[in-house]
Amino acid sequence: MSVEQRAISTIKLLSVDQVAKANSGHPGAPLGLATVAHLIWKQMKVTPNTPDWINRDRFVLSNGHSVALLYSLLHLFGYPLSIDDLKGFRQLGSHTPGHPEAETPGIDVTTGPLGQGISNAVGLAIAQKQFAARYNKPNFTLSDNYTYAILGDGCLQEGVASEACSLAGHLELNNLIAFYDDNHITIDGNTNVSFTEDVNKRFEAYGWNVLWVKNGNEDVDAINEAIAAAKKSNKPTLIRLTTIIGYGSLQQGTHSVHGAPLKADDIKQLKEKLGFNPEESFVVPQEVYDFYQKETIEPSAKAEQEWNALFKKYSAEYPTEAAEIERRLKGELPAGWESKLPVYTKDDKALATRKLSEMLLDNIFDYIPELIGGSADLTGSNLTRSKEATDFQPDDAPAEGTYAGRYIRYGVREHGMGAIMNGISAYGANYKAYGGTFLNFVSYAAGAVRLSALSGHPVIWVATHDSIGLGEDGPTHQPIETLAHLRAIPNLSVWRPADGNEVSAAYKVALKSNHTPSIIALSRQNLPQLEGSSIEKAARGGYVIQEAKDAQITLVATGSEVEIALAGAKNLAEQGVTARVVSLPDFHTFDLQDKEYRLSVFPDGAPVMSVEVLSTSGWSKYAHEQFGIDRFGASGKATDIYKFFEFTAEGVAKRALKTVEFYKGARVISPLNKAFYSVL
Amino acid sequence: MSVEQRAISTIKLLSVDQVAKANSGHPGAPLGLATVAHLIWKQMKVTPNTPDWINRDRFVLSNGHSVALLYSLLHLFGYPLSIDDLKGFRQLGSHTPGHPEAETPGIDVTTGPLGQGISNAVGLAIAQKQFAARYNKPNFTLSDNYTYAILGDGCLQEGVASEACSLAGHLELNNLIAFYDDNHITIDGNTNVSFTEDVNKRFEAYGWNVLWVKNGNEDVDAINEAIAAAKKSNKPTLIRLTTIIGYGSLQQGTHSVHGAPLKADDIKQLKEKLGFNPEESFVVPQEVYDFYQKETIEPSAKAEQEWNALFKKYSAEYPTEAAEIERRLKGELPAGWESKLPVYTKDDKALATRKLSEMLLDNIFDYIPELIGGSADLTGSNLTRSKEATDFQPDDAPAEGTYAGRYIRYGVREHGMGAIMNGISAYGANYKAYGGTFLNFVSYAAGAVRLSALSGHPVIWVATHDSIGLGEDGPTHQPIETLAHLRAIPNLSVWRPADGNEVSAAYKVALKSNHTPSIIALSRQNLPQLEGSSIEKAARGGYVIQEAKDAQITLVATGSEVEIALAGAKNLAEQGVTARVVSLPDFHTFDLQDKEYRLSVFPDGAPVMSVEVLSTSGWSKYAHEQFGIDRFGASGKATDIYKFFEFTAEGVAKRALKTVEFYKGARVISPLNKAFYSVL
Repeated sequence: MSVEQRAISTIKLLSVDQVAKANSGHPGAPLGLATVAHLIWKQMKVTPNTPDWINRDRFVLSNGHSVALLYSLLHLFGYPLSIDDLKGFRQLGSHTPGHPEAETPGIDVTTGPLGQGISNAVGLAIAQKQFAARYNKPNFTLSDNYTYAILGDGCLQEGVASEACSLAGHLELNNLIAFYDDNHITIDGNTNVSFTEDVNKRFEAYGWNVLWVKNGNEDVDAINEAIAAAKKSNKPTLIRLTTIIGYGSLQQGTHSVHGAPLKADDIKQLKEKLGFNPEESFVVPQEVYDFYQKETIEPSAKAEQEWNALFKKYSAEYPTEAAEIERRLKGELPAGWESKLPVYTKDDKALATRKLSEMLLDNIFDYIPELIGGSADLTGSNLTRSKEATDFQPDDAPAEGTYAGRYIRYGVREHGMGAIMNGISAYGANYKAYGGTFLNFVSYAAGAVRLSALSGHPVIWVATHDSIGLGEDGPTHQPIETLAHLRAIPNLSVWRPADGNEVSAAYKVALKSNHTPSIIALSRQNLPQLEGSSIEKAARGGYVIQEAKDAQITLVATGSEVEIALAGAKNLAEQGVTARVVSLPDFHTFDLQDKEYRLSVFPDGAPVMSVEVLSTSGWSKYAHEQFGIDRFGASGKATDIYKFFEFTAEGVAKRALKTVEFYKGARVISPLNKAFYSVL
Repeated sequence: MSVEQRAISTIKLLSVDQVAKANSGHPGAPLGLATVAHLIWKQMKVTPNTPDWINRDRFVLSNGHSVALLYSLLHLFGYPLSIDDLKGFRQLGSHTPGHPEAETPGIDVTTGPLGQGISNAVGLAIAQKQFAARYNKPNFTLSDNYTYAILGDGCLQEGVASEACSLAGHLELNNLIAFYDDNHITIDGNTNVSFTEDVNKRFEAYGWNVLWVKNGNEDVDAINEAIAAAKKSNKPTLIRLTTIIGYGSLQQGTHSVHGAPLKADDIKQLKEKLGFNPEESFVVPQEVYDFYQKETIEPSAKAEQEWNALFKKYSAEYPTEAAEIERRLKGELPAGWESKLPVYTKDDKALATRKLSEMLLDNIFDYIPELIGGSADLTGSNLTRSKEATDFQPDDAPAEGTYAGRYIRYGVREHGMGAIMNGISAYGANYKAYGGTFLNFVSYAAGAVRLSALSGHPVIWVATHDSIGLGEDGPTHQPIETLAHLRAIPNLSVWRPADGNEVSAAYKVALKSNHTPSIIALSRQNLPQLEGSSIEKAARGGYVIQEAKDAQITLVATGSEVEIALAGAKNLAEQGVTARVVSLPDFHTFDLQDKEYRLSVFPDGAPVMSVEVLSTSGWSKYAHEQFGIDRFGASGKATDIYKFFEFTAEGVAKRALKTVEFYKGARVISPLNKAFYSVL
């Protein structure tokens, strides 16, 4: 048996052994995919000792349930994942959880929820194209890496993948090579129960180069030829591999091999068939380690050394660009960028926060080259396109733009946009991806937003039209539950700024973050510049915007309702009731402040009432009483709707009086004072 | 000018006048689509006086922002929408909100969020096929209606539409005729900035019949021929209409005509060009009313009369089926169905609630013919398929099944499934659609779930693997924010039953509901049958499962944590602390109970502590203190993870003791006692 066949067998058996040891996992796909995985990785630039090298090739396992395959590869290709780690597969506290998580060195993106990985891969490919277009120079090819992805039938059925792949075709991302594991099996059995579309034709319709290897389990030559052909294409390539799931198992070709460990006798016969000792587990022949060392790891290390040498020369010839690259690779923003954030005083004009966001982006876009923006076809509404921007488009596209452009026309593809932003962020080089849509339609991308937070991709959603204040479009477009949803996601900032200074604070914190994504919810309607706001104060997530001695009540509000809370406080003062007002633009950032500060914002002694024109759900964390909207909205002029729901100075004051009355004489404890704190 | 041309012009101008009067809305698509809308509606079965007639043709405006067009049609075709209603377009309290809402007679589904409408249309077509297969008999064609849909570029870009349309092709839904408004314009400008795929080829790949009318604005003959050809196809048909947006406006063909009213001089020239008096608005020539009356309304009424006569004969020949149809059309479930709901006692076996759900479905599936289930490719995990079920498949499909089948293989298409369920529900005939996926992936379908709640479609999500209790699949699959998200959606029940009786209660309430959708979150792991539970009590949404006199604390939990809360109470008792325990399987249903009852569950006097292995967000509505998980989960054995997060008797007791201590001596008010209540 050749060493290559032995290597393939080793990948298969390491994967099967992991699943068997854990008595949990998916052996079917690794058995079907070991050959192609070997052939992909063998020729990749793989640098296990410098896993963040910017010009390494990227690999995405979109069918993340096959993760045992990936762990086998990482071990064999020299990443710090030991045989003991493989033995800990799917156990609490191990380095080998049940789906790929990006914190493991060598794993480029967290996958598992189907359709996300291939969409992340589109983002990785976009980032490479943009990086190359900005920095490559004649005789200096700093960036030329490929993104490889493996995906299954499930990924192809998911809408998010359809969105991302249609855009990848439009963008002619020929640095993207995806392998479709056409194994005919999903959990419900044969794919012919629900999935009989012509995948090749569909991807051709998207503008992809489609190749088909009909014996994906064994035809090494055909796979190698397909990879070579893909690299010559001017389009993204889908290599369809017709395979047999669980290849070599007694259960091969059935869905029983998809998600359950192989039985002992099955493993035994498989090991015998592959020439391994059936009594041993987790075996790696030394020749396999040696093969990958020589065939892949050493050439990759050499490529990296050459790159380093090249970069040195580049630094002499293009010092500005080189310094910029070095800065970005350190994960640092350009010095002094914060001074570009607009500052406002109360005498400045009332403007919609979406407009203030646009003005801010105009100020910083050119200054921060790692900013890469876009919108899901709402550019003129989200106001996400800086005047300085060039569209990101292939040179021969029908529309204006170049690959050096940093404004992406995502089309009406919110979920795809979210997953692509994650991929851009995962590329490294400090890329800060932002994308616009209406706040209500961030929900379409919930699957991707959750993964931004879980994987720590600091992407930014510019989420305009953030409430009933959008007016006439009505309840189908007016978010109600949206902020409650997003605020409940761990590691996610959800900003709702009240004025220009708070918009600047939101972007300041969001752009400085290297591990926390942000939603910035912005108004369609004009809002005044508030007297008590400042970037510094708002950057703490929440602050007292109007203090009052011996206050009988604290009003806390966000965004467009801060103005109304302040008016409510004025109305209350006229009735002899003292209210202080808190602006709380981001729960997440506020929660990270020290307790003393937080209690200074929400002290014991007086009841707190929240004011926000969305669901009250989640607000009792800070407020004893909640004024919100726990029904769907209404179509009409924004001012009419605000009046209808009584979000006016009078409506706030009326409820504040009831609150003061209700708590009269009681010992009032701040909602922040708790008996214990939840598991974090 | 022919009366037909006059009718088309009337549709155009009524639409333009609405937008102009409101000074808000979208005139471009109505101008481009008036001709095809006229031709579709002219030949439809349209019964404005009996808008719920089961065999009427259905119409879906998937690009819902063109709603002015739909209001014009409804007015002209005799629905109770007056000229004054049109004049109230987009005003608060009018019958003509900014996007189509299903509560308006004649509007089959609420649309606006792009991609939903065409996916609903797939559901409407599925329901028709199933209804016909069940009830049509030789010489008795009770059901043969078509579903027509108009969709734009935006809908085609959305992943949800890709999912639904791929399935529609697989299912060979030749009763579905969709018109693609190929006008080259979206909000970001020319579609060539992001959408250059070959739509025809893509839909052919899905298994659709694709036709192309190249002058969609004017070529009446070609459109009529395409409709006729579509009706002869054995596949769903996409008729691509290349049109000019805002046709006839001075701004035609540009995106400035998409979402802003036409200017006064533009309206003037348009009216002159179309032979109308430019000084008048909202004009309908009597001949146009007469034309539709004679051409469409009268023949439709005649068709309905014939149907009624046919149904009378059918009732004589097929009394059982006829009685079933009559019952269903009244929106009533079969008498005695509730007796089929399983009842358990504490001595019954511990089982996963997903398994209890399966047993329940087995009991009722055959008894309730309007139940139509499915799963997004997780049948064996969600346990959604009754033993009695036949798959819903076309006769010549490669997989087993028939159109009379009531189990849908949705594929890995959660969002499509959600939107299709809405469409099935919208068809009428009391269809109760349920669909399975993991709770975490209901989030993929957030756009559709929100519309279920907004439109009042009582669909049911069988959402298994509802927490960290799913174990090894890890944080990518473990919901944290999911319940907080769903509970914040108005008009949505979110059940998390603790045992068999509570599973029965959840289905009981969910199936009885005619206007509220439900999520039923179910465990992967086994749970014991609890002593204090009953269907009747759980059907109130929350109840005291273990009372205690002079309790020092109330523990409230859901699902798998009720058992742990009970164990915690026992542990506390051993330490001399008295705790009562509340099970709260559905916030929404509980909130609808009278205040006295709710306060009996959560009385003043002792603090309440919640216990749930998901985000604490939203819980302070009922509980002073919250024990939950405000971070992402972990991969490992479920029992290990529960211990890691301290969700054990000891972990509950520890926090309960802190809570009792914290509130000692204080006057404790029930969280349900509020100073005021939020707008509902």
